[in-house]
Amino acid sequence: MKNTASIKVIKGIAEMRRFSLEARKRGAKIALVPTMGALHAGHLALVGAARQKAAAVVVSIFVNPLQFGPREDLSVYPRDLAGDIAKLQKLGVAAVFIPEAAEIYPPGHRTHVEVDDLSQRLCGRARPTHFRGVATVVAKLFAIVQPHQAWFGQKDYQQLLIVRKMVRDLNSEIEIFDLPTVREADGLALSSRNSYLTPEQRPAALTLQQALHVAARIMAKGERSAAKIASNLREVIRTQPGAEIEYISICHPETLHELDTIEVRTLVALAVRVGRARLIDNALFDLRELSLRADLKKPSKPAAAAKPAPSPSPSERAGAKSAIKAAVKPVVKTAEKTSVKPVVKAAAKPLAPVAGKPAAKPAIKTPVKPATRPAAKSPAKSAASSVPKVNVAARKKAARR
Amino acid sequence: MKNTASIKVIKGIAEMRRFSLEARKRGAKIALVPTMGALHAGHLALVGAARQKAAAVVVSIFVNPLQFGPREDLSVYPRDLAGDIAKLQKLGVAAVFIPEAAEIYPPGHRTHVEVDDLSQRLCGRARPTHFRGVATVVAKLFAIVQPHQAWFGQKDYQQLLIVRKMVRDLNSEIEIFDLPTVREADGLALSSRNSYLTPEQRPAALTLQQALHVAARIMAKGERSAAKIASNLREVIRTQPGAEIEYISICHPETLHELDTIEVRTLVALAVRVGRARLIDNALFDLRELSLRADLKKPSKPAAAAKPAPSPSPSERAGAKSAIKAAVKPVVKTAEKTSVKPVVKAAAKPLAPVAGKPAAKPAIKTPVKPATRPAAKSPAKSAASSVPKVNVAARKKAARR
Repeated sequence: MKNTASIKVIKGIAEMRRFSLEARKRGAKIALVPTMGALHAGHLALVGAARQKAAAVVVSIFVNPLQFGPREDLSVYPRDLAGDIAKLQKLGVAAVFIPEAAEIYPPGHRTHVEVDDLSQRLCGRARPTHFRGVATVVAKLFAIVQPHQAWFGQKDYQQLLIVRKMVRDLNSEIEIFDLPTVREADGLALSSRNSYLTPEQRPAALTLQQALHVAARIMAKGERSAAKIASNLREVIRTQPGAEIEYISICHPETLHELDTIEVRTLVALAVRVGRARLIDNALFDLRELSLRADLKKPSKPAAAAKPAPSPSPSERAGAKSAIKAAVKPVVKTAEKTSVKPVVKAAAKPLAPVAGKPAAKPAIKTPVKPATRPAAKSPAKSAASSVPKVNVAARKKAARR
Repeated sequence: MKNTASIKVIKGIAEMRRFSLEARKRGAKIALVPTMGALHAGHLALVGAARQKAAAVVVSIFVNPLQFGPREDLSVYPRDLAGDIAKLQKLGVAAVFIPEAAEIYPPGHRTHVEVDDLSQRLCGRARPTHFRGVATVVAKLFAIVQPHQAWFGQKDYQQLLIVRKMVRDLNSEIEIFDLPTVREADGLALSSRNSYLTPEQRPAALTLQQALHVAARIMAKGERSAAKIASNLREVIRTQPGAEIEYISICHPETLHELDTIEVRTLVALAVRVGRARLIDNALFDLRELSLRADLKKPSKPAAAAKPAPSPSPSERAGAKSAIKAAVKPVVKTAEKTSVKPVVKAAAKPLAPVAGKPAAKPAIKTPVKPATRPAAKSPAKSAASSVPKVNVAARKKAARR
């Protein structure tokens, strides 16, 4: 079914509208995957999953000037239009929408959509107009493309939350779907901005992921003080001199309000500058899972061998078990250890899930699913669930393929 | 064709969506007239004109808390739901949408649409969150009602401008139509808030209209200094001790930027507090019309006797002529005179145009039409055109009906 029809490359707003109108007339569901291009496996996972749910997948590629601050990387943001189109063609995308900034923001454009409060937290502190730019361009793309559904990655958790809120508040009927963060072989969350990293900066970039592991472990151990958890994460990241912390947030997953004492559902979100790259990562923790599993006190089993189950998921179970194991070791020592050896070896073939049949499991719409949920075929390959023992098994499994 | 079908009273958002979906499925054009209820002839003119253009007219009645400031009149804003529904039923309105504030703004609502710069000018100075509230609720109503077109009055010129800008900037395909201000017999612009006025406050309320007359006269005389024009208007309004000026703006009709020297197209907008009522009025002037007519130097003729003509309109012609006459008298003296006797006796039967066949002429969409354009059957009855002599004729004509 895929690759049979040629992808339509659309530049003008009027042409995009006509395309969507025709698709709707023939009863086709339209899914929009908004991107800024320089597509990686994270984007392609969204496209693959959208393809399973909608006959007409539209991918927009637009480096939105409104979401860049005056001293940010708008002019050097990676671009690879020909490569992007080739990738999307293979996935059976119906149309790629590549509007010009001059048509999206003609002279005199002065309307903004702002999701108050949420937009000022986390990344919004250092990037005060960023989410206003995101919400505005998403609202515009929704009005132009008229999709039935739109897809976003959990890597940009705050963006996902803001888009959901905007859709609900502005009475839009567009369904928002999300997928877990896709990671590189060494655990680094995929981002177009990873191309800014030099090989020497890699260990510093990996501290985000390592810090999230540490958070899982000390929460499972029973730590409830956000200040103490943050302090531990800070130490993990500081093991690498090239990693400059912008923020460590331990917050409510819906309001993004900072917590003093962690709650049943807690988001841990990080922004760290490494050289030219500003990197973000996050994990959503559910204490019921962590402590429930801890209470069971069953012997640990490699997560990679666990079978998928609806609730709790294998990754959550494995994460809790590894947390129990981790609890016997000093947290900082663990962190120091993991800063030398990357903890997570998941997603050894990051492109695999999207090149063939999209294996990425569409996440449920509300509430926002944990960013640590498995992205691909092995449900155990998520951040919070991976421990060295698990990773060995996962690696072996990957080698066997 | 009218009054045959019963009006549908819709309270819930889901029901409203269903209604619109069904209307669209059967190919009916949907027109939305957003109101805050307490309907007067201005609203009904919009409804009547909408009825000519769309099979399914939806009138929303929602006293939007978001557009009221903390010390404003939200709690006492006039309400007359039964009376409103009866009026709309007579005009063949398909549905009246009366949502609850709790459903429009559920707990946690935090998204706003803001048209920057335009929203901070004129009324936005004293009401800093007003237009954000307007833009947000209009965006929400558009998303719920899904109209093909929406209707707004020129009386709220700034609101009309902001809604147009929002629609354009957010790539909405909804057509915005407007109609000239409808006035009471004594020239007062219709507003639900006029019900706050006591008979003693009437002369103070009429100074807005009188000031706009004066603006027309001194511009036709050749005055180009905004400061001098404003100073004249200020004196007119100050003839009535009960009239407290909030602003007098002489500004660009698209950007609302204050002008030093008036331009070809100039908006004069006023906000005056009279007792509990905050009153606004405005007129859009085109100097080409004023000076062209002034150059002709033909003898003046009563405007009421003028025959309709496409361009320049009789009102514009009469306005220029009366301006020439006014030029020989001191402006303030004229104002003093008119503050005793109401200048404008137009629209003696304000309900007439909408009770039968709507006579209100739908204005063209872009650019915004002058608020001084005739609202009803007698094109000469607009603000800029009326002089005492004309009014006598108009009154007689009205008496003959």
